[in-house]
Amino acid sequence: MLNLHTPTPDHWFDKVKSNLEELLLDHAHCEKKAAGVAMNLLFAYVEHPDLARAMTGIVREELEHFEMVMDRIQKRGWSWRKLRPSRYGERLHALIRREEPGRAVDRMLVAALIEARSCERFGMLRDRLEDRDLADFFGSLYESEARHHGSYVHLAQLFAPREEVRARLAELAEAESAIILEGEPMARMHA
Amino acid sequence: MLNLHTPTPDHWFDKVKSNLEELLLDHAHCEKKAAGVAMNLLFAYVEHPDLARAMTGIVREELEHFEMVMDRIQKRGWSWRKLRPSRYGERLHALIRREEPGRAVDRMLVAALIEARSCERFGMLRDRLEDRDLADFFGSLYESEARHHGSYVHLAQLFAPREEVRARLAELAEAESAIILEGEPMARMHA
Repeated sequence: MLNLHTPTPDHWFDKVKSNLEELLLDHAHCEKKAAGVAMNLLFAYVEHPDLARAMTGIVREELEHFEMVMDRIQKRGWSWRKLRPSRYGERLHALIRREEPGRAVDRMLVAALIEARSCERFGMLRDRLEDRDLADFFGSLYESEARHHGSYVHLAQLFAPREEVRARLAELAEAESAIILEGEPMARMHA
Repeated sequence: MLNLHTPTPDHWFDKVKSNLEELLLDHAHCEKKAAGVAMNLLFAYVEHPDLARAMTGIVREELEHFEMVMDRIQKRGWSWRKLRPSRYGERLHALIRREEPGRAVDRMLVAALIEARSCERFGMLRDRLEDRDLADFFGSLYESEARHHGSYVHLAQLFAPREEVRARLAELAEAESAIILEGEPMARMHA
């Protein structure tokens, strides 16, 4: 369903479970970035009314999640601050083709893969975290990330035939897996 | 309350009342831009939690309005498309100082003035349009624009003392009035 080519390795969970403050702070910024990406897509492709409506929905949901994460950070007395992101998003965005309509297809599919990876990790956190308050919270976000993944894959088909979208999704998913398998030392949602 | 130095001239209303399709299309894009501005401010000043929360609220409301305007355009069978904007926003943004914290103050106050002008014009459209469906619609948006104006002026005080903010607001309002009095030939919300 999520079109991911590699499951998250166990060592990712081992790293983040002892750094929940950093994980949550990074998660807040990821929700903000997800909202920003959807806003950019709204601006870039506003002439497609279905896409415009889907993006407004996604922006609003991601910002709601952003606030929910902020609430949890502040309730735990953790400091609210900026945080250096992982290079995951930047590395995926570098794969986006420059020329339309390939660019539109890739922007949709990269967004789709980020949502898919978030979804998969939220599931892992929901199932394994001993901190049940946070486990339940991540579980509550699972469904919307899966839905966003599906929306983005569907919207890519505004710009290319279905078979072409599936083929490009497989290519990008392969690249995403390689980035994930390489990993990063910081405790980040997409490290 | 709205800190505007000049009321909208009657000839603006005369121009837009016979171009409601263009006005509404421009209005949709203005709501989108207002959401984009608030998103940019969220990214730029996210370390201020009160500002971050205020921006998420404004983005969500502006996008809701954007969809409401789209609905009306589509219901009337008018074509959904991109539209060349007036130069109002661009001219106001050119007044923003480059160096922080003045830059933050100016970004908040320019946003505040755009909300104020929208609010004033929604009031004029509510009171004068013969098309009562649209008149009521503009009336329903009046309160939120006034509220956003107040929020932005208040948030500017995160970056400078109250007296300094008031003085700069008066300067920018004077410049905004000059832009409005100069006017533009196109039927636009901020022409």
